[in-house]
Amino acid sequence: MPRAAPPHWRELRLEIEEFNEAYAATLDAGRVDEWPSFFTEDAIYRITGRENADAGLPVGLVYCEGIGMLRDRALAIAKTTMFAPRYLLHLLGNARVLEESGDGSIAAQANYALYETLVDEKTILQQVGRYRDRFLRREGRLLLKERHCIYDSLIIDTALVYPV
Amino acid sequence: MPRAAPPHWRELRLEIEEFNEAYAATLDAGRVDEWPSFFTEDAIYRITGRENADAGLPVGLVYCEGIGMLRDRALAIAKTTMFAPRYLLHLLGNARVLEESGDGSIAAQANYALYETLVDEKTILQQVGRYRDRFLRREGRLLLKERHCIYDSLIIDTALVYPV
Amino acid sequence: MPRAAPPHWRELRLEIEEFNEAYAATLDAGRVDEWPSFFTEDAIYRITGRENADAGLPVGLVYCEGIGMLRDRALAIAKTTMFAPRYLLHLLGNARVLEESGDGSIAAQANYALYETLVDEKTILQQVGRYRDRFLRREGRLLLKERHCIYDSLIIDTALVYPV
Repeated sequence: MPRAAPPHWRELRLEIEEFNEAYAATLDAGRVDEWPSFFTEDAIYRITGRENADAGLPVGLVYCEGIGMLRDRALAIAKTTMFAPRYLLHLLGNARVLEESGDGSIAAQANYALYETLVDEKTILQQVGRYRDRFLRREGRLLLKERHCIYDSLIIDTALVYPV
Repeated sequence: MPRAAPPHWRELRLEIEEFNEAYAATLDAGRVDEWPSFFTEDAIYRITGRENADAGLPVGLVYCEGIGMLRDRALAIAKTTMFAPRYLLHLLGNARVLEESGDGSIAAQANYALYETLVDEKTILQQVGRYRDRFLRREGRLLLKERHCIYDSLIIDTALVYPV
Repeated sequence: MPRAAPPHWRELRLEIEEFNEAYAATLDAGRVDEWPSFFTEDAIYRITGRENADAGLPVGLVYCEGIGMLRDRALAIAKTTMFAPRYLLHLLGNARVLEESGDGSIAAQANYALYETLVDEKTILQQVGRYRDRFLRREGRLLLKERHCIYDSLIIDTALVYPV
């Protein structure tokens, strides 16, 4: 049921959408080395199946705590050659602002579909899910304090090393 | 061809998008009991194939007239156990405001893709289509006077009892 | 990494999204004769695979230069009967404004998924890609000076004569 939201949430929503599209474009372009720059120093990044997320289980496919772990992950992906070349494309729904906390953090959510194309193959839907996010503002810009990618189901991929 | 729209239609568009994302998040979370709260008392809700809709035929897959019928439907779904558990996810395009009528109703449209995931199965595209809507403002908030879901084609599902 | 964009880019982004949704709705409704009206007189329209686009190769699936070629193409499609009836539906991501040039042109980008449904068949994902656009303002309205559709991979279709 639509509730009355504070008026400044509309601008916040639009700003988050711009953040999300920049994030997606960076990953879609294969610039995984820039991926950590969307996060705060102490950020948490997770990918979890919906069944586990709904049950409150911490078990996930990917868990990174702190920008060091995000950078290690980005570096590992950038260097790896085991991994067949593929194109990714994110299609994002609009963002929903859910809450603003006393510490200035903003909870938000957005649906996504992630498409994957291996060379000379048909495009497949790799996963659909939603981002559950917590943003902080740093020097005027939004950064992710937490991004939790909760997928409904995914094609179990040889290597879901790439960030969502 | 893009035409010049009244300036306040931009805010209206954004408000409708927020309504649509709240509607989708409610259904995606499985809170079907809250679904009728998005409609006016005398609302009409329909799901129709595009071929019939284009031909002006009233024949549809689902037809509800009045909030009583929407509540009955929501209750039936909430109680049913025949129906295998599944996750739904809506991916929505942006809204287009098409018309404002003298009675204050607003005609709008938005494309959608609906993904369905049964436990331990791959996510499938259940249907793509567009919402053809008529909104009314009640106590400052938008409500649906009419939502007509027109799908291009759908995977005929054991039970399309769940609202789109 | 999200950068600080000029404040008026937000309104520009919203205006481009409205343009893109009107463009998609025109094609989805099968009104291909109206398609050229979204372009300037000297516009370029292209559809290219990502591999070629990334390599800077001009080779593409479709190349139209000037509104005459767009009109010829639209006319050919409208008249053709070789081509099985199908429904199209575009699902668009939000637009990103990338640059404003001294000549007033605006570079922008948006992701898309294009779904195709042949009569009595399942809906398929025809292609995912991104629009790389250059807009000009003419008599207060945006028009496409260039639309470059770059697809990740596509289902090679009997006849991709229809614009994306």
